[in-house]
Order: sequence, then structure tokens, then C-alpha cells
Amino acid sequence: MDLSPKVQSNSNGTTILPPKETSLESNGHEMKGSYRTNLARNENMEKLQNHYLFPEITFRVVEHLKKYPDAKIISLGIGDTTQPVPEIVASEMANYAGGLATPEGYSGYGAEQGNMNLRKKIAEKLYKNLGVKNTEVFVADGAQCDISRIQMLLGSNVSIAVQDPSFPAYIDSGVIIGQSGDLDHKSGRYKNIEYMTCDAENGFFPDFSKIRRTDVIFFCNPNNPTGHAASRKQLEQLVEFATKNGSLIVYDAAYFVYIADDSPRSIYEIPGAKKVAIEVASFSKIAGFTGVRLGWTVVPEELLYSNGSQVIKDYDRIVCTCFNGASKIAQSGGLACLSDEGYKAILSTVNYYHENAKILTDTFTSLGFNVHGGINAPYVYVHFPGKKSWDVFNHILEKTHVVTVPGSGFGPGGEEYIRVSAFGKRENILEASERFKRVYL
Amino acid sequence: MDLSPKVQSNSNGTTILPPKETSLESNGHEMKGSYRTNLARNENMEKLQNHYLFPEITFRVVEHLKKYPDAKIISLGIGDTTQPVPEIVASEMANYAGGLATPEGYSGYGAEQGNMNLRKKIAEKLYKNLGVKNTEVFVADGAQCDISRIQMLLGSNVSIAVQDPSFPAYIDSGVIIGQSGDLDHKSGRYKNIEYMTCDAENGFFPDFSKIRRTDVIFFCNPNNPTGHAASRKQLEQLVEFATKNGSLIVYDAAYFVYIADDSPRSIYEIPGAKKVAIEVASFSKIAGFTGVRLGWTVVPEELLYSNGSQVIKDYDRIVCTCFNGASKIAQSGGLACLSDEGYKAILSTVNYYHENAKILTDTFTSLGFNVHGGINAPYVYVHFPGKKSWDVFNHILEKTHVVTVPGSGFGPGGEEYIRVSAFGKRENILEASERFKRVYL
Repeated sequence: MDLSPKVQSNSNGTTILPPKETSLESNGHEMKGSYRTNLARNENMEKLQNHYLFPEITFRVVEHLKKYPDAKIISLGIGDTTQPVPEIVASEMANYAGGLATPEGYSGYGAEQGNMNLRKKIAEKLYKNLGVKNTEVFVADGAQCDISRIQMLLGSNVSIAVQDPSFPAYIDSGVIIGQSGDLDHKSGRYKNIEYMTCDAENGFFPDFSKIRRTDVIFFCNPNNPTGHAASRKQLEQLVEFATKNGSLIVYDAAYFVYIADDSPRSIYEIPGAKKVAIEVASFSKIAGFTGVRLGWTVVPEELLYSNGSQVIKDYDRIVCTCFNGASKIAQSGGLACLSDEGYKAILSTVNYYHENAKILTDTFTSLGFNVHGGINAPYVYVHFPGKKSWDVFNHILEKTHVVTVPGSGFGPGGEEYIRVSAFGKRENILEASERFKRVYL
Repeated sequence: MDLSPKVQSNSNGTTILPPKETSLESNGHEMKGSYRTNLARNENMEKLQNHYLFPEITFRVVEHLKKYPDAKIISLGIGDTTQPVPEIVASEMANYAGGLATPEGYSGYGAEQGNMNLRKKIAEKLYKNLGVKNTEVFVADGAQCDISRIQMLLGSNVSIAVQDPSFPAYIDSGVIIGQSGDLDHKSGRYKNIEYMTCDAENGFFPDFSKIRRTDVIFFCNPNNPTGHAASRKQLEQLVEFATKNGSLIVYDAAYFVYIADDSPRSIYEIPGAKKVAIEVASFSKIAGFTGVRLGWTVVPEELLYSNGSQVIKDYDRIVCTCFNGASKIAQSGGLACLSDEGYKAILSTVNYYHENAKILTDTFTSLGFNVHGGINAPYVYVHFPGKKSWDVFNHILEKTHVVTVPGSGFGPGGEEYIRVSAFGKRENILEASERFKRVYL
């Protein structure tokens, strides 16, 4: 093969350097003396913060285990479900999967948008009386994936706002797609992203009088990590703010089933929301589908771009081009989740996690901490005034072998907090509570 | 709510028009008199061609059925598998799914990159002696989805080349991410995309002396729709061309299992390929997983950007941010596919489709057509000199009630051809062949 360097032109006619054998080692990723392509690294990828939350936690736990090989680690960190899926759901999936070996049971590609029976059931059961049409429901493999697809839909030329703190995927996918601008290392914030502070001072709900107008508002409700579920009045403010500004709300309702009081479970409970909001949701935290992978996104027909065209048409195109449908096995399970028996079983598991949250809340409260969340969410959000989140995380891990999540991992607004997941098994929640008491009492 | 129009500023400080009640109807998507957001439609989405292939085919079939309600349609159109999955694979998935209802069988999130046992098995069994590491294999929900994730990785500032014709997702995802430039309506080609003509004249393999250098080369092999599998010598040319230019090859090997002669099944069989190529593949066409959803992408550690950093690091980040792992049920099936018994069963199904392809090839050959593909691919690619593909598609549908795919749906280079899928059931392949004979003899 001819590997001799030649001066090339790129697609714009600019002269570019030929591939070369590198001998530089300006950063840890470089491989000395190796052939390099002439492919420039996507500059958006360069803007991502180096440490990302959950792998960083995993790394620290691994280091901890090197130090304490016999430690009985309890993970109340990543929000991973631990309770089995309802029998009726598992057996439906087992039947579907087993049937794939038979001529009658076999089927290939489904619609990219999902099985119409499931779309219909989601619209009927979860958006009852809210006027959501079957065809406005797009079934997919989970909320995180749908958020990225929404980012592909939106593209790089939109401005975004996020709750601070919130689930990192909104910002990270925004950085990757090119919406963020550079990171300001001092504040830990990206320059072009509007951070909507949610702290104890404002009741964990943004003060919109202080928020700059953006094209898009990512809004996670109940919020991860704070556990706060907005009241009807608050969501009315959100919809009003978006409507006034002509902003799109990307409403992440992944934890809606945990809302125990009369707060709205869907943004579409707010009049006018269908004109301004997309809603993303998931079976993961509802039915223990974190490993099964199933979710959905609602894009209302009424939602229009500034040029008057429908967002749903473009989203459909994204789904058909960038996705090929959720696993039909998972979809059969989703349908079973929404049967009367399935949903009853789901609510019983949700109740179990609610009880866990109460145990954790009572524990930290008894130890004198200010505790938030836990009532309408599977997360308990604990304040450690004046402390750095990562220091608290390290201290708790060191002293109790319990894994939590530092609030600052969800944005600079999460500093001084830790998030404790109620998704554990009961015995671990109780054991962790005992360990917390030993350290903090 | 206050809906009165106000003059707003966007994130760049530019004054923009307030949301308004529109009364224009300049295109079919607009809704008269409705509230519009101030969200500008992503201009990349506007560049997509209106008719996209498979929905257009579906539309025409629906129209056909209105005209002939009793027609016995045979679909040899979309490449959808029809044979059941192997018993050992289905029962493994059924067991896994059923077990999710038990405390012992339940598990939540898996690694975003996939179950390590499956990654290992793919590396060992499918890349034997090619030096692919477990950690270079990223398990996902299918090739189409991985192509979009690769496009997110690459971003908008790269130039791309595609085979003409080829699977539409490379171009469409390139348009969405912003790589394509505008469509030239006359030629049917996007201005910034390099189309590598693959026709009977060049043996369905690009003449690289005529190809402009691009940052990325999408290469589907065996090609969909032409069915051509490149020889070792041809793939050496491809790797040499990429290496010389410092280009990245995104090699789509979705149909590798159909290669029946001694052509390479992986790009990594070519020396030096690991420095320039990512390989995408899938269980869909191998094991009938079109509805189950499982695939993988190999990103070699040796593959470097022009700045010397590793592509795999960024791809890992994309997978962790924009994806959350393939369904664990599907992954359990993938592992069973690669067991000795599973793989034997898979090859038996592949053989069945090969026989179908031979029947179709013999039929069209006997009718005097030039027929390509079919030997190393499940697609038969038939030439209708001087005819428009969509006219041939319509004619065949009208006269035989058989659905094919017009070659031009895969790019302007597919004009005059139709693609016929061998993924049908045997009785349908035979019946379709009879109908073709009745029309064309």
C-alpha cells in the first residue's frame, strides 16, 4: 500500500496536512508513533467535561474496594431498580420471545414508531382525558435515547435551558450536538446554556423572572436528583413562560408514577401545554425495565415551529431514520404493564420504593439533616451545608461502604447535596440507614 | 395566560419575531390560525428529500389495495426476515424474560456498551484471529441506530462519501446532522456528499481514481441494494484509498453472513484496516432479529483522529450519553446465536434465503434480464435498461401484486434497477416467480 504522505484538499478545497506518524504525546489519549487519520475530532466532543458522573462513581467504588476488599458495599447510587418485574409482564415477554421460534409467533420489523396497540394503550391509560392521540405517542427504547433523538431533531442552532441540578443527559447531549458553547471552568457551566437554579431557597422550582428566554427548556419532573414534583400552579407558570417566549418544553416525566400527591403527572394536564411541550417517559422506573429498555415520547400535532410546520412530522422522520423500533419483546411487556393486573402490580412495587424512601427520609431527618424529595420521587436529597458533594460522597463511602451520588454531579446547583436512591432492596435500605446512624448520630 | 405578542431576543441577542397566530398556508404542514412557537425548524431537516423510500412504498401498496382489495400481495420489498429464530435462541430469551419476575433472575441496567460475555463472544467467534478486543465491540440495538450514533460522533463538519446506490440511512442521517449541503434537485444528489457510483460498468465497485477525498467513507458490504460483495483485492483498494487520504471508513457489514465465496467478511481481514475503519453489524439479517433489535459496532483502539486522540474514547462517550444498552433479553438471545448450536441453526436459515435468491435469480435470468447480487447477499438486483425504477416498481405491482424496491430509492445510481428481497417465505418466492414469468415471458 502507498502510505507516503501527500498534500490533500478537503471538501471545501482547503489544503490540509497529510496523515502522519505522530510522535507527540500532548494528552493521555494519544498513541505514540501511530498512524493518524486526517479526520478532525468533532469539536463538540472536546467540550464535554472529562469526568462524567456514573463512570466516575464506578471508578471510585472500584478504588474503594481495592482498599477494603471485604467491604459489603450497598449501592444507593445510580437509580437502578432492584425489584422483579410483575409476573404477568415477564410471562408475556417470555411467551412472545418463545413464540419467535414458531412460524405463527414469528414476526420481523415492526413500525419504527411502535406497535399501534401499545401506542393506543399508552394514550388511553396514561393520558386519559388529556386528548393525546395514539399517533402522537412514539414508543422507543428509553428516555435517555429519546432525549438524544430530540437533540438530533433540534440541531445545533437552538438555545437551551436546564434545571440546575438535573439529569446530566440534557446538557451532555446538548454539548455533543453543539448547543452549549464552551465550558466556563470556574462556574462549571456552559456559556450558552441557561441554568435554572432549583434549590431550597426557591422550593426547587425555577424563578422564571430570573430566567433568560431560550428556544428549548428541558424540564425533568419529578426532578432527578432533587425529587421535587412541581405543583399545578408551578407547571402553569412553566407553560405560561414557555408560551410567552415561544419556547419548546422537553418535559421528562420518567418518574411520574412516583407522584403521590395531587401534583400533575403529565405536562398535558396544564391547558395549552400541547402547543409548547414534548413529553418523554419510560417504563424503566415504572416497571423495572431498566435492562429491558422501553419508553415513549409524546409529540402533539398542535406543536408548531416558528414557520408553522409541525414538529411531529420531523420527529417521525428522525424516528424512521435514526431508530428502528423498540424490541418487540419489550413492547409486549409494555402492553402487559398497562393491563389492569399489570398496572396494579406496578403500583405495588412503586409503593415498596416509596416505603424505602420514607425509611431513608426518616433516618436523615432523625440525624438532623434537611431532607428533600422522597415523597413524589424515588430519590432522597440530603443537604450537607457548607460541604462539597464529592467530599460527602467520599466520606459516606469511606465510613459506611454505601454508594450515593454527589449532587454536584447533576450540575453546580447540586453542590452541598447528595442524592440517595430508594430503589434498593429493603434489607439494604435498612442496613444503610443503620450505618448512616452510626456515622452521623 | 398572557399570550400577547412581545418582541423577544434570542440567545445571541438578536431580536426575533414574537410567537403569532398564523394564517399563512404556504405548505401542507402548516396549521391555519394556530399558535406557533418561536422555535426555528432545524434547517438540516428542511434539506431532507420529501419522499423517503419505505414509507413511500407502503403508501403505494395501500393505494394499490384500494384499487384491488382482493389482491394477494407478496412483499419482496423491505428486507424483512420471515423465518423463525432458532429454537435455542428463542428459548434462551424466553428463559431470561421469564426470570425477570424472580429475585434471582432479575437485573436492572447493564453496561451501556453491552454484556461483556456477548462482546467477548462476538470478538472471539466473528473476528477470530483478527485481533479485535472485547472492549472494542459495542453492543447496541441495531445497525441503523448505530449509524446515527456514529453521525453524532462525527458531527456536522466532516465530508462524507457513499456508494451510489446504497442504504438510505447514511445520507439521511448525514443530512440531519448537517454534512450534506443542499439537494441538487436536478441530479438528486446533495452538493457536499461524494457519490461513489457502483454500476454494472465498474462491477458495482467504486473507481477510486474518480473519487474525491472525503473525511468519511460509508461503505456497505455486501452492498444493499446491489448485492455485490467486494473481493479481497477490492477491499485492499478501499483501505489503501482511505489510508492514503486519512479517511475514516464506516463499514456496514450487516449482510456479512451471506457471503458464500471467499470474499472477506470483515474489513479487518484487510491489513491496516484497524487504523482506518469502524465496522457496524447486526443480528437482524443473521438471526431474524429485525424485531428483536440487536447489533454491534467495532471501534479499534488504533483508530486515531488527526490530533492523535482515540476515536474509541469518544464513541464510548456517545454510547454512554445517547444510549443506555441494548435490551438484556435481546442480548441473551445474541449470546445463544453465537453458541455452536445456535450458529449452526442460523447458517441453515441463511442457506434457505440463499436458495430463495437462486430461485429469483434463475427466474429473472430465464426471462432475459441481467441479474446481479443474490450470491453473496439476500438481494437480487435486476436491470431494466432504459426504464425508470419507480415505473418498473409500479408495473410489477400492478401486474403481479408483488412489492419490490425501486433502485432509485437507494440513490440516483440505482435508476433502471429494482431490488428483489430473498427474505420471503419459499412459497411466496415461488409464487412471485410464477407471476413474474406470466408478465415478462
